Amino acid sequence: MILKKIDQLTEILLEIKKQNPLIHHITNYVTANDCANIVLALGGSPIMADCCEEVEEIVSMASALTLNLGTLNEKTANSMIIAGKKANRLKIPVILDPVGVGATQFRREMLKEILEEVEVAVIKGNLTEIKNIYGIREKAKGVDSVNDGIFYEEKKGLAIEVSKKFKCITVITGKEDIITDGGKVYIVENGTPLLAKITGTGCMTASLISTCCSVTENYLLASLLGVLIMGICGELATIENRGLGSFKVKLFDHISNFTKEELKKGRFYEE
Amino acid sequence: MILKKIDQLTEILLEIKKQNPLIHHITNYVTANDCANIVLALGGSPIMADCCEEVEEIVSMASALTLNLGTLNEKTANSMIIAGKKANRLKIPVILDPVGVGATQFRREMLKEILEEVEVAVIKGNLTEIKNIYGIREKAKGVDSVNDGIFYEEKKGLAIEVSKKFKCITVITGKEDIITDGGKVYIVENGTPLLAKITGTGCMTASLISTCCSVTENYLLASLLGVLIMGICGELATIENRGLGSFKVKLFDHISNFTKEELKKGRFYEE
Amino acid sequence: MILKKIDQLTEILLEIKKQNPLIHHITNYVTANDCANIVLALGGSPIMADCCEEVEEIVSMASALTLNLGTLNEKTANSMIIAGKKANRLKIPVILDPVGVGATQFRREMLKEILEEVEVAVIKGNLTEIKNIYGIREKAKGVDSVNDGIFYEEKKGLAIEVSKKFKCITVITGKEDIITDGGKVYIVENGTPLLAKITGTGCMTASLISTCCSVTENYLLASLLGVLIMGICGELATIENRGLGSFKVKLFDHISNFTKEELKKGRFYEE
Repeated sequence: MILKKIDQLTEILLEIKKQNPLIHHITNYVTANDCANIVLALGGSPIMADCCEEVEEIVSMASALTLNLGTLNEKTANSMIIAGKKANRLKIPVILDPVGVGATQFRREMLKEILEEVEVAVIKGNLTEIKNIYGIREKAKGVDSVNDGIFYEEKKGLAIEVSKKFKCITVITGKEDIITDGGKVYIVENGTPLLAKITGTGCMTASLISTCCSVTENYLLASLLGVLIMGICGELATIENRGLGSFKVKLFDHISNFTKEELKKGRFYEE
Repeated sequence: MILKKIDQLTEILLEIKKQNPLIHHITNYVTANDCANIVLALGGSPIMADCCEEVEEIVSMASALTLNLGTLNEKTANSMIIAGKKANRLKIPVILDPVGVGATQFRREMLKEILEEVEVAVIKGNLTEIKNIYGIREKAKGVDSVNDGIFYEEKKGLAIEVSKKFKCITVITGKEDIITDGGKVYIVENGTPLLAKITGTGCMTASLISTCCSVTENYLLASLLGVLIMGICGELATIENRGLGSFKVKLFDHISNFTKEELKKGRFYEE
Repeated sequence: MILKKIDQLTEILLEIKKQNPLIHHITNYVTANDCANIVLALGGSPIMADCCEEVEEIVSMASALTLNLGTLNEKTANSMIIAGKKANRLKIPVILDPVGVGATQFRREMLKEILEEVEVAVIKGNLTEIKNIYGIREKAKGVDSVNDGIFYEEKKGLAIEVSKKFKCITVITGKEDIITDGGKVYIVENGTPLLAKITGTGCMTASLISTCCSVTENYLLASLLGVLIMGICGELATIENRGLGSFKVKLFDHISNFTKEELKKGRFYEE
C-alpha cells in the first residue's frame, strides 16, 4: 500500500518540476522570503501580491492561492477575500494557513469573514489554530500551539469534523501530523523539534502544500506530500547539526534535492 | 566580581530556556525574519504583529515588547503607542530601537510622540540615534551612525543623561558598547566590524535585549547580556570566515548554542 | 579592449569601498532583506524607507535611488514618485526595476505614472518586463519572463529602442544579458540557471547596479558591472553545489569577496 502511495506522490513531485506552477501568496512580511524560496526549491514559481487592485488578475494566472494570516490587517484580509472568490470561480485551490488565529479577536473575525466568502481546499494549522477554526476558543500563546498533549483520538476527531464542516482537507501539524478529507486519515511521524525553532516552517509547509495542490486534483495526497517533504527534510537537516543557522540552510538544500529516494524515508500510515 | 556577574547572567539565559517567553515585536519588514529567528535561537517565542486592532491583545500575552522604528509609517507608530501604553499598564518591559531617528524629521516626531506616551525600559541605539533622542540634532547617514570617534567620556555622559531623562536603561552600541541605568555603567568590548556588514544586527540586538528583559526585573543586567551575546557570537562567527553569507549563518549557529561557556568570553567591565 | 574595461570597472568597485555610498530603496517586503545585504556586501550602505512623509529627506542623503515594483501598492507608488522627482532635482541616479509589470494592469498604470514623472538612469528587467515598458502587451507568468527564446537581434533592438525612448540605460537580463545606452551594446554571458531558482536575484541585481551607479556618472559601465558581479558570483556559487540553501549563502560570500580577480572571469563583449 505504502509503495503504491510513494509512486502516486512521486508523480505529483515530477508534475511540479514539469509544470513549474505559479503559486500566488497573500502572506505576512516576516516569512514571505522563505515561502517564495521554498516554492522555488520544489519547482514552482511564487508570486507574492496583496494589493486589492491586482490580486484578481494575479490569481487568474496562478495554479494555487495561499492565504496566510500572519501580520494580517484589514486591507490584506480584504484582498484575501477578493482573490479567494476569484480562485473559487476559476477552480483554483485555496490553501488557508490561519496563523495565530487563536491569539486575537481580530484574527478570528477576519478568518470568519474569509471562510464565509471563500471555499478553501485545504486548512493547515497547529492544534490551537484548528480548534479556533472549529469554534473552540483556545487562547494561543502567540502563534504557537499551547498544548500538543491531548489524546490522539481527540485530535483526529477534530480534524475530521473540520473537514466535514468546511468540505476541505484538514491538516493538523504537531509531533505527529494528521491529514484528512473527513473520511480517510493519514498520520505522518516525520519531523524534528528543530523545525519549531526557526520561524516560518509552518508557513512554508502551507506553501509546499499549495505547490503540490496546484498540479493535482487529489488535494488529500497533495497535502500529505507537502507535510512529508517538510518532515523528512527537517530530519535530514539535523544530520551533523551545527546550530539553527546551518539547519535552515540545510533544510532548503534538502528540499531542493528532494526526490523519490527521500520520499521513501516517509513514516506515514493510513487509518 | 566578573565571575559573579557571569553567574547572574547565566541565570537569565537559563530562565529564557525554561520560560520560553513570548516577545511581541512591532518592527520593520526588512529584518523581521532575522529578529524572529534570533528570539527563537535564544529560547524565546517571537510574535510580529502591528495591526492596531490587535496589538493590545497580543501584548497582553507577551513578556516583552520591542518597538523598532525601521520602515516606520503613521499606522505602525500609532500601533506602537497603543501597544506600549498597554504594556505599561501590565508592567511588561518596552524596549525601544529608534532606527534611523537621526535621518528624518518624520521619525523624530513619531519618536517624540511615542516617548511622551510610553514609558520605556530600555533604549538601544547607535551614537547618532541616542544623540537625537536627547535632542541633539545630529544628521545620520541613513540608519548608521556617522561618527563613532567622540571621546568615550562624552558618550558615557550622554548615556547617563538619557537614562536619567527617560528613567530607563540606555545602550549605546559602537566599537565599545555602553550600558547604563544612569548610575552603574557597563562597557562591553566584544564585537567585530563584520556585524555592521550585514543588515539587522542592530535590530537583532534589541530583540536579544527584549528576550533577556522578559524573564528578569534587572533590565540593566538583561541589556548587558543581550549586548554580550551579539558581540561574543559575532566574534565566534568570524572564525574561518568565508564571506558575509557564511558569517550570518554562523552568527545564528552560535546564538542558538550560546551557554555559560561562551559567556566567559565576554570582555566587559563595570565603571 | 576588455582589459582596459576591467580596469575601469575595478575603479568603480574600489570607489564603492572608499565612499560607502547610501543607497535608498523603495522596494518590496519579499526581498528587502536580501537587497540590503547585497548592498552591504558590495561596500555600500542600504536604507529602505517608503513612507511618503520622509522619502524626500531620505533620498536627499542618498547617492542612488532604487525603485522596485514588487508588492507595489498605491501608497508606495506615490512615495516612488515623490522620491524620484527629488532625486531628479538633486541629480541622484534612479534605477527602476519594473518587477512583474507584465502581470497586471495595475502595475502597468503605476509604472506609466512613475515614468511620466521621474527620469530614470537605468531600467533593468527581464524580456517580458522590458517589452511591457515599451508598450508591447506581453502577459507575464507572474514575475518571471515567459519567453527568452526570441532572436538575439530582436532583443538587442528592443533594448536600444527603450534606451532611446526613456533616455536611459536599459538592461535586459536573461540567458545572455544585454546592457545598452541606445548606442553602445554590451553582452554578458556569465550566469547560471540556479540564479533563477532563488527569489530576489533580479531585485538584487538592481541593487548592485544602483550601488555601482552611485559612485560614477558612467551609468553604462556601472550597469555592466552590476550585471557582471551577479553573473560571476552566481557561477562561483555553483562550485561544490549542495542545494539552493547553500547556493544562496555562497552567492553572498562571493559578492562580499568580489575583487578585480573575480572580475577577470567576466565573459562580456561590446558590439
